Amino acid sequence: MSNSQANIGVIGMAVMGSNLARNLASREGNTVAIYNRSAEKTRAVAAEFPDAGFVASETIEDFAASLQKPRTAIIMVQAGRATDAVINQLVEVFEPGDIIVDGGNALFTDTIRREKAVRETGINFVGAGISGGEEGALLGPSIMPGGSASAWETLGPILRSIAAVVDGRPCVTHVGTDGAGHFVKMIHNGIEYADMQLIAEAYDLIRRGTGKSPAEIADIFAEWNTGELESYLIEITAEVLRQTDAATGAPLVDVILDQAGAKGTGAWTVQTALDLGIPVSGIAEAVFARSLSSKPAQRAAASALPGPDGDFTVADVDAFVEDVRLALYASKIIAYSQGFDAIVAGAEEYNWDIKKGDIAAIWRGGCIIRAQFLNRITDAYAENPGLVALVTAPYFTDAVAGAQSAWRRVVIAAAQAGIPSPAFSSSLAYYDGLRADRLPAALVQGQRDFFGAHTYKRVDRDGTFHTLWSGDRSEIQAVDTH
Amino acid sequence: MSNSQANIGVIGMAVMGSNLARNLASREGNTVAIYNRSAEKTRAVAAEFPDAGFVASETIEDFAASLQKPRTAIIMVQAGRATDAVINQLVEVFEPGDIIVDGGNALFTDTIRREKAVRETGINFVGAGISGGEEGALLGPSIMPGGSASAWETLGPILRSIAAVVDGRPCVTHVGTDGAGHFVKMIHNGIEYADMQLIAEAYDLIRRGTGKSPAEIADIFAEWNTGELESYLIEITAEVLRQTDAATGAPLVDVILDQAGAKGTGAWTVQTALDLGIPVSGIAEAVFARSLSSKPAQRAAASALPGPDGDFTVADVDAFVEDVRLALYASKIIAYSQGFDAIVAGAEEYNWDIKKGDIAAIWRGGCIIRAQFLNRITDAYAENPGLVALVTAPYFTDAVAGAQSAWRRVVIAAAQAGIPSPAFSSSLAYYDGLRADRLPAALVQGQRDFFGAHTYKRVDRDGTFHTLWSGDRSEIQAVDTH
Repeated sequence: MSNSQANIGVIGMAVMGSNLARNLASREGNTVAIYNRSAEKTRAVAAEFPDAGFVASETIEDFAASLQKPRTAIIMVQAGRATDAVINQLVEVFEPGDIIVDGGNALFTDTIRREKAVRETGINFVGAGISGGEEGALLGPSIMPGGSASAWETLGPILRSIAAVVDGRPCVTHVGTDGAGHFVKMIHNGIEYADMQLIAEAYDLIRRGTGKSPAEIADIFAEWNTGELESYLIEITAEVLRQTDAATGAPLVDVILDQAGAKGTGAWTVQTALDLGIPVSGIAEAVFARSLSSKPAQRAAASALPGPDGDFTVADVDAFVEDVRLALYASKIIAYSQGFDAIVAGAEEYNWDIKKGDIAAIWRGGCIIRAQFLNRITDAYAENPGLVALVTAPYFTDAVAGAQSAWRRVVIAAAQAGIPSPAFSSSLAYYDGLRADRLPAALVQGQRDFFGAHTYKRVDRDGTFHTLWSGDRSEIQAVDTH
Repeated sequence: MSNSQANIGVIGMAVMGSNLARNLASREGNTVAIYNRSAEKTRAVAAEFPDAGFVASETIEDFAASLQKPRTAIIMVQAGRATDAVINQLVEVFEPGDIIVDGGNALFTDTIRREKAVRETGINFVGAGISGGEEGALLGPSIMPGGSASAWETLGPILRSIAAVVDGRPCVTHVGTDGAGHFVKMIHNGIEYADMQLIAEAYDLIRRGTGKSPAEIADIFAEWNTGELESYLIEITAEVLRQTDAATGAPLVDVILDQAGAKGTGAWTVQTALDLGIPVSGIAEAVFARSLSSKPAQRAAASALPGPDGDFTVADVDAFVEDVRLALYASKIIAYSQGFDAIVAGAEEYNWDIKKGDIAAIWRGGCIIRAQFLNRITDAYAENPGLVALVTAPYFTDAVAGAQSAWRRVVIAAAQAGIPSPAFSSSLAYYDGLRADRLPAALVQGQRDFFGAHTYKRVDRDGTFHTLWSGDRSEIQAVDTH
């Protein structure tokens, strides 16, 4: 093994890491160093892909020595302790000016902590969200790197070379400092949860309302994929619904146990949004729908709970399917609007200069939520960088205006038929809340003042007030200490 | 000042602390030591309430010396750093066997951490949730203490003496070890958020659907308070709605700014439930509704978003009001069912032996969510301690069976009229999800297997499976590493 010949290294040779290394190696001008905790694995990957020309090292010292300066290494190991262990190793063998990239699914607050610690050694630390799964890692992911501007100068060309490309533009941008990249990747995943739940509700309503088979519904999704809903998730939904189980001859979707798993990034999104005071009800309902599905004992006990009388059959099938399409589209706009609200609030809280339009642009390829629709988001922020809510951009306002009657009919049909549509109905309630002239939050403030002297503000003058509820019920001006 | 004459001490003489101290002093056999960081405050409280016979100390050493052994002190200062500072002071002057009680609104994980640290000194640490606000502290709160069984032996009689009493039973019980008390208090507050939001939605629907005035709706709530909804929050809702603003002559609820505040325990509940994998959608929607209301810039930008055509007027006012009452009742059952699910999951995660029926019993008095209804929860757990979901207990199943048609009509009316009812509709969607024979979670699992090889389980045999989506689409048995 000769030294200092690789311009980029990858640590961690599980499938995501080896695929990313192969992707890097396939691009003009790259020589890729690889390393794995167990040397056996490193040797196996080098042997399996001889054309990649990997520079394989069996010790972290050799790995460091095999890299040109400034050394740049992408860590692709499990988030959490394994990541911390590799960072500690690299800090020992790297030098000031070198770049450590964490390409795992780290929680952004961990990335903030790590960046701060590593920066003190003079080494750059970049937390980079990488979306697209195994296939994306190999063929072109969407990449969301944080970190310093100077690290981005070195790293940018390399990441641009391996990212997915849409309309000639690589799906990578420098998101912001320290944890910004992993934060935006988290929000991406949260939106993905909402997107998937909305599609699931659309499928369920059509199936139960029209009696169509999964294969017939696959055709509907395939058709939707030619219009404004065009996206990877709609595309693969058609594929999944069309699949027949070889063992039983039944549609695969009827053979799969209806208990959805989760790996935690959806919950992180909601937890973070709660810290930031941002309502992300669509994402929350999607996360809850998965956890509800995975409670077999409760569901068994609840199976005798009564539903509406009579069967649910829609009169005009085509009209109903179109209503569901519009409900899906409108609800999706709300989910993205909420997700971008969380990005805006996160950027403010953590002092990140995040270009919302660029984020939408780099999600157009490589990642799970890639969709035509994202161009409209980029446009909306280009037109108005200070847009306070995505749904209030003219394009999206028109879209929900055109969809809202259908959306209401679908939520009504679901409530009437007893078909759970938590994400559809929650999105509609959010929409109606946002546009309401007056909310019953005033009553909530009155209750809070009554039982906890939490005070309230008035519509007609400044200040903070309290009614002496257990006294003579006069109003006093209060110093707001609550 | 003579020494060692007090059997209980209170630290922190803000209104909650001084009220609790006065409550303690008013009970037979108690002599109460008081201490505040600023001695001036301590002197002022002692002077203002001479009948209380407070033993006032100006240093923490004198405070400790004024207490009989085992010394017992209740800390009533701000949650967070102030609490830690006082604990550190007390650990210096207390001895093994003494008892430190944190009566503030601590996050239960902080209580777990503090209990562990204090226990190492041989001193007992008890995190006690205290609900009921200033009035509860003075006249009888609901108290949810955690901590060791031995600390409870000393503390129990004192806390029983000051707690609210319902049907001869003091509203206090030993909840469980370390953070159990503050955990249950947090869930109490989460349920309170849901309860308040549901009431707010009920008010809004009746007002906008029938044109009744706040005072007329106050009469409706007063009437509801004589039936199965009887509760403190329904009672004070009537009071708030009946209140006229002296300055304008308008109903106070129309003068209060419709932006609801929050102090964070609702968000904690949802964040904790997400960690535990428990869907608490009713509480989440309530938290989100408050944060949505407090986004004036977004709401202004969204005020032009289109709603349904035409006005909303209900044909049969009395029938609609009764429908809303039933929707409120059913949604409230769901909120409590979800809240108790979180308690069950928390008890399992943290090894607490929490008696659910006792929790419902001690919430019947003193606290904000006190209600008749809680007796039914105690009964349900008495009948079946292993109840997997509150809503599946016969009493509650009958209640939702009787309410569900009305509930659906209300959710439908809200969607049709464009009146936001996130908590009503989310609760209904949860109910329909829980009782569904089959959920579209199967499609979500199919999607996850397609894009991320996350695997799925089958309805017809054990094991974990993966379809080779980018291969020949055959199915393989997988080792579940995801």
